[in-house]
Amino acid sequence: MSDKQRWIVGLDIGGTNVVVGLVPLEGGEPQGVRRLPTQSEAGGVEVVRRSAAAAEDCMEEVLARHGGRRSDVAGIGIGAPGPLDRKTGILLEAPNLGWRDFPLQQLVSDALGLPAALDNDANCATYGEWWMGAGRGSEVLVGLTLGTGIGGGLVLDGEIHHGASDVAGEFGHMTIDSTGRKCKCGNYGCLEAYASGPNIAARAVEGIEAGVESVLSDLVQGDLEAITAATVYEGVVQGDPYALEVMKETAKFLGAGVANLINALNPDAIVVAGGVTRAGDHLFVPLVKEVRRRAFRSAVDACRIVPAALPETAGVIGAAGVFKKETFGSV
Amino acid sequence: MSDKQRWIVGLDIGGTNVVVGLVPLEGGEPQGVRRLPTQSEAGGVEVVRRSAAAAEDCMEEVLARHGGRRSDVAGIGIGAPGPLDRKTGILLEAPNLGWRDFPLQQLVSDALGLPAALDNDANCATYGEWWMGAGRGSEVLVGLTLGTGIGGGLVLDGEIHHGASDVAGEFGHMTIDSTGRKCKCGNYGCLEAYASGPNIAARAVEGIEAGVESVLSDLVQGDLEAITAATVYEGVVQGDPYALEVMKETAKFLGAGVANLINALNPDAIVVAGGVTRAGDHLFVPLVKEVRRRAFRSAVDACRIVPAALPETAGVIGAAGVFKKETFGSV
Repeated sequence: MSDKQRWIVGLDIGGTNVVVGLVPLEGGEPQGVRRLPTQSEAGGVEVVRRSAAAAEDCMEEVLARHGGRRSDVAGIGIGAPGPLDRKTGILLEAPNLGWRDFPLQQLVSDALGLPAALDNDANCATYGEWWMGAGRGSEVLVGLTLGTGIGGGLVLDGEIHHGASDVAGEFGHMTIDSTGRKCKCGNYGCLEAYASGPNIAARAVEGIEAGVESVLSDLVQGDLEAITAATVYEGVVQGDPYALEVMKETAKFLGAGVANLINALNPDAIVVAGGVTRAGDHLFVPLVKEVRRRAFRSAVDACRIVPAALPETAGVIGAAGVFKKETFGSV
Repeated sequence: MSDKQRWIVGLDIGGTNVVVGLVPLEGGEPQGVRRLPTQSEAGGVEVVRRSAAAAEDCMEEVLARHGGRRSDVAGIGIGAPGPLDRKTGILLEAPNLGWRDFPLQQLVSDALGLPAALDNDANCATYGEWWMGAGRGSEVLVGLTLGTGIGGGLVLDGEIHHGASDVAGEFGHMTIDSTGRKCKCGNYGCLEAYASGPNIAARAVEGIEAGVESVLSDLVQGDLEAITAATVYEGVVQGDPYALEVMKETAKFLGAGVANLINALNPDAIVVAGGVTRAGDHLFVPLVKEVRRRAFRSAVDACRIVPAALPETAGVIGAAGVFKKETFGSV
């Protein structure tokens, strides 16, 4: 009994994709990982049905391979975009999914006949990096995920910091230029308004529209609306001076945000995830330089600023970790 | 023995004043409070000597009044401007005092023959408000002190959050305008560069120099260099439109900083201390309005933004609390 492999399902529901996998109870690589398009417009109930089917599929394969049984699966951890209420397991609002007051945790638990836990997707990703990834061993860990939006998480002494109403970690909506670019959230000068994927692309397009010559327009055959952050990255790879400049400016904006977090929280690690981190040194070198310029030296010296180690599966691992932590008290 | 009153000395060493008092072990108003000019230019050893003399004086008076004995004093908690090393009790650097690598804790302990503990002054002030003031009952408390600089502290579940190298809580050096006003720390656009006392005054003077008519110039008989944040406050009291505008702008800058802290940490309370809070509603009404404009609604709704309840003695009470917490495990 005691040497029997036990498991937790990790389910990461994002605006674009759902990822599910079976995580060993003691931690480790998720097995039997399934990835499916979210298609949130079909409604929450349908997404739960398809996610549960993928989880069943995943469990069947992995348990068969290990000669395990369904009773070896302790439960399921779910990561989803907030704001949400962890106590009731309800998604209050999910702008990227379009659902409101949706009892996600209960529905998933019922569909699989397993106990479930729910947390914010960015918290799960940060927790996954803390448990098994680039944040291992950190006592004060800041996670930053650069995607369509900018998400964040904070793990203090091995506990996700949720704050008073489960909103903590909204680092993307930190003002870095109080009279600056308009953000989707309605405010001006949020970090996200400069350094999210769509805003990196928008800033690149603005320059080209103003007359800058760049390989970026060639990469999209002149259709500037088709430029994405990935296009900018492609331009960086090709050594295009303008794409490099856009990346460097992105790093400067990010640097101001990261410096704020360092001065406020004095973390020992900041893990940066998301597609734009593929730019590697083109992002991290100017980022760290800007942070050094802005933050207290002894705080910068105490902090490693590193790319995520689990870009594909941190959310799944972290969601499983959240379930384990809630159920067994620690991971 | 058990109903005997026990005490802790609280010592708050600031750039301008030293305050010392005897705090009941179970918490409460400090007794026999002494306040003396720091005169840091005389050197750390001399300041310790005078502070210790004031503490002796204070103990003698209070113990005599309560029929107590020296052995009823458990120890001394010290608050001082950082950066400092709590483990060794050494002030590493104290720009406002001019001392470097100064073994403050040991010297104070030796001078009084009492065990001592040391923490950052802004942490102590926040901890004092959490223990006995406007932050009582808070689980996620942000403290903000607006003075010559802007200091901050963070108390999570009754513990001061120190971070990886005792630097956490430097909220004054949060960038709110990445290309904005130059700050004393060398960067651009720090909150402190807008909302510290000297910078409130500097912004007011800039307007008058640009030709704005205001009672502020009359209040200093035309000597604009004599304008301080207190002058601006005086102008607000007299209903001067320009002084009111400067205060309102101060509130907007502060609002951007407070909103950042709310989005990042989702606190249930933010306690604002410092002379400028005397402006009352002239500060807090536009401050809260700006915060509502910038931060997530459910996070703003979960947070009370209040003036400090212990403006004179939070540092002394908090320093005593730090000693108690370190010695007895809790306050």
